[in-house]
Amino acid sequence: MSEITRYGVTTRWSDAVVHAGVAYFVEVPDDPTQDVTTQIHQVLDQVSARLNQLGSNSTRLLQTTIYLPNPDDLALFNEIWDQWVPRGHAPSRACIHAQLASSNYHVELVIVAAL
Amino acid sequence: MSEITRYGVTTRWSDAVVHAGVAYFVEVPDDPTQDVTTQIHQVLDQVSARLNQLGSNSTRLLQTTIYLPNPDDLALFNEIWDQWVPRGHAPSRACIHAQLASSNYHVELVIVAAL
Amino acid sequence: MSEITRYGVTTRWSDAVVHAGVAYFVEVPDDPTQDVTTQIHQVLDQVSARLNQLGSNSTRLLQTTIYLPNPDDLALFNEIWDQWVPRGHAPSRACIHAQLASSNYHVELVIVAAL
Repeated sequence: MSEITRYGVTTRWSDAVVHAGVAYFVEVPDDPTQDVTTQIHQVLDQVSARLNQLGSNSTRLLQTTIYLPNPDDLALFNEIWDQWVPRGHAPSRACIHAQLASSNYHVELVIVAAL
Repeated sequence: MSEITRYGVTTRWSDAVVHAGVAYFVEVPDDPTQDVTTQIHQVLDQVSARLNQLGSNSTRLLQTTIYLPNPDDLALFNEIWDQWVPRGHAPSRACIHAQLASSNYHVELVIVAAL
Repeated sequence: MSEITRYGVTTRWSDAVVHAGVAYFVEVPDDPTQDVTTQIHQVLDQVSARLNQLGSNSTRLLQTTIYLPNPDDLALFNEIWDQWVPRGHAPSRACIHAQLASSNYHVELVIVAAL
């Protein structure tokens, strides 16, 4: 069977899973007590750090699903996102407004990236 | 072209699709007349059975998206999920609260798994 | 590192991203001023055109996530979808009712397809 490498494995989830050169991971704000601006910076920083941990980087994103419970946060998210994404390397991207596992989460990112 | 294998093909969807050693499938409760506890057990049993059908198993999950229309069901879901996931093999996981195709569905799982 | 090919790259997203023989893309209606029926036809035509651009076609869909903000649109979506999907080649499919990035969007499709 092909190899699967898991990072940060808990009983409930793994922080990241790598298979066949593709990484799957999800980021919610490490500190959900912060305001929405801080949370957006946090999750993008977390994505950068995770990719770095996996030996990848933010030019290697394939698919991103952005969950924002509050539709009013999208303009702010886009402003910060546009500064974060490396020019010429933007991923496929969907943005959905839905309630998340914690009502304190203002943003959640589901990522598929290439190593 | 690379091979695609489809299982349980209908006009509208396939029960599972396999490509390049990766399986994509979705499970909703086979009997949505049951209560939420039974539905959660059902969909997890269905995931196990589907993986078995594909020659895979629950240690091979890569990415799981959990849809729970009712946020109050998350604690119960987690309790059952934690018993179901093989120790050391938890997938990447996102949990979203949104309305599903049938108002009778209390849970839906979208799975990406390795063969 | 493995090759990533991006199509229609903007600051914010790419129209499609291809890696290891798998394409990731998202379609929202090109003209969201149209009614729901027209929008559904639009996005499915856009998926066909995108697959064609990538050298793939609608028999090569692996995973589709269908977002319909209005649950009442599902029957209509299914009617048009059933005509569009090539017999014997339906993808894995999830349907979620959630609010989208623009309140004018009646439908959004997130696609994973094989080249």
